[in-house]
Amino acid sequence: MSKDFERAPNHFTDRIGASDWPVEAGRYRLVVSRACPWASRAVIVRRVLGLESALSMAVADPIQDSRSWRFTLDPGGRDPVLGIEYLGEAYRAREPSYDGGISVPAIVDVPSGKLVTNDYPEITLNLEIEWAPLHRDGAPDLYPEPLRDEIDAVNEDVFRDVNNGVYAAGFATRQRAYERVATRLFERLDALEDRLSTRRYLVGDTITEADVRLFVTLVRFDAVYHGHFKCNRRKITEYPALWAYSRDLFQTPGFGDTVNFDHITRHYYEVHRNINPTGIVPIGPELRLWATPHGREALGGRPFGDGTPPGPVVAGEEVPDLPPA
Amino acid sequence: MSKDFERAPNHFTDRIGASDWPVEAGRYRLVVSRACPWASRAVIVRRVLGLESALSMAVADPIQDSRSWRFTLDPGGRDPVLGIEYLGEAYRAREPSYDGGISVPAIVDVPSGKLVTNDYPEITLNLEIEWAPLHRDGAPDLYPEPLRDEIDAVNEDVFRDVNNGVYAAGFATRQRAYERVATRLFERLDALEDRLSTRRYLVGDTITEADVRLFVTLVRFDAVYHGHFKCNRRKITEYPALWAYSRDLFQTPGFGDTVNFDHITRHYYEVHRNINPTGIVPIGPELRLWATPHGREALGGRPFGDGTPPGPVVAGEEVPDLPPA
Repeated sequence: MSKDFERAPNHFTDRIGASDWPVEAGRYRLVVSRACPWASRAVIVRRVLGLESALSMAVADPIQDSRSWRFTLDPGGRDPVLGIEYLGEAYRAREPSYDGGISVPAIVDVPSGKLVTNDYPEITLNLEIEWAPLHRDGAPDLYPEPLRDEIDAVNEDVFRDVNNGVYAAGFATRQRAYERVATRLFERLDALEDRLSTRRYLVGDTITEADVRLFVTLVRFDAVYHGHFKCNRRKITEYPALWAYSRDLFQTPGFGDTVNFDHITRHYYEVHRNINPTGIVPIGPELRLWATPHGREALGGRPFGDGTPPGPVVAGEEVPDLPPA
Repeated sequence: MSKDFERAPNHFTDRIGASDWPVEAGRYRLVVSRACPWASRAVIVRRVLGLESALSMAVADPIQDSRSWRFTLDPGGRDPVLGIEYLGEAYRAREPSYDGGISVPAIVDVPSGKLVTNDYPEITLNLEIEWAPLHRDGAPDLYPEPLRDEIDAVNEDVFRDVNNGVYAAGFATRQRAYERVATRLFERLDALEDRLSTRRYLVGDTITEADVRLFVTLVRFDAVYHGHFKCNRRKITEYPALWAYSRDLFQTPGFGDTVNFDHITRHYYEVHRNINPTGIVPIGPELRLWATPHGREALGGRPFGDGTPPGPVVAGEEVPDLPPA
């Protein structure tokens, strides 16, 4: 009997500023894939908080090979700052005998070339808390102290049923396990639809870490999870509040301007040959709909609270525009 | 280089009433799968024309095995009229050396056990024309002489781009071939959306063969073609006119009351292991939406023309109800 899908624990969990690794501008490099929802949390938070110059970013090719994430998008197939071809090199610089999984997001110490952390649930919180001295002027508080219990509680449900639920559905190999997680996923989406029908954001009246975590799954939902992972009771476009909420965030500086749909669809459909043997990448859905009016301003809310929106995307980090109507 | 998907020509093309096989009540048996769109055309036409007692029907298991369509839904795994376990036995009764594909719909001569025809494009026309003396009182004319050229022209486009287009997209093994047929499919759906925005049916103001042929693909679209065959630019629910048209037909006697969504989804997702290696069958979409009001009466039209709707489904041919709201 095959086991249900379980996400492997992260091996490297050092927290910068709360360990031997000090917070220091220019010292670390964030390695991401724009395909990956867990990494995309960090991409959004880094930009919203204005950490681009303090923490540089390497974007891996959305298509891994047998040695995992690689820098084949860069000249010569090498990350220009770390000088490595594969992210795995940083893992082994840290622990030469390491032969576990290689995952993004990862933070690498540039001087030593060693991996510091691949602990995705903590990386964004780390950027929000310990990295605060390096935030831009006007950076919002994405994890306000008085709301942390509520944010953590929402995140726990969203992680189990939504962020991870789509993977558990997609990688299920037994019908009953699939049906259980897929049903739970849509029950959670139904509950989130209710919650977001009367409030603009998940917790409080501003964007928080909870919205970042839900957004990264919602933005991939119709493009990959709906078909590829068989999460097909409904599309997000068929949930009025969730779809408007998704577009509202997408159109907020720091969110949609980090999303690369080409990386997303090619990654899932080309890499998971156990689910999609041909590697054919579908033509849908219609991405231009992400730019349509959402009407969520009517619910009030102050997107960045007492802060301000982030400025333009820094040079070299642009993503492709949505296709024209 | 792998070839694009091509539908194999049908091998047995005798036309009853226009060959050595005379039209005769009770002599032949129509073998179908309710999963199969080509067979479902014949299921609908047989019922709308009231041919149930003249032409009996065998329903194959939606899951073929290596010997193809089989009668494992029947007691003892044998069709009670033909006395065979596999449809292939009727093919070989006709042509002992036959080793080609076994397809439904098929019409079998009961006395000899021989296959008469598996020529799906002609079977419904045959039922409409040569079988007319056996039609029920009040049977509509699904293929009216003055409209045949227009019906044939619509059918040709719908076959190439829609009926067969979804298969060509789903079985494509090259990205470029997939994109070409998937794009053409949605261009055709866009054109059909326009056509059906101002008229209730495809040709004339009554239901015709053209509607039967489009319906069998539309009713499967969101449940299987959208995800399994990667026809995911839009769901049919995202086309206002096509979705209302689909529900209008579904709610018309003779259409939805022949549809078995369980047979449809299990067939595609369990049988095509080259596309869906795990055989997991998705939980979606929400089938109860098929029962929602469509509002197409406002466009006028006379569903059965000068005829009448068919009566209740005959005993033993019922399909499961839609799930409750």
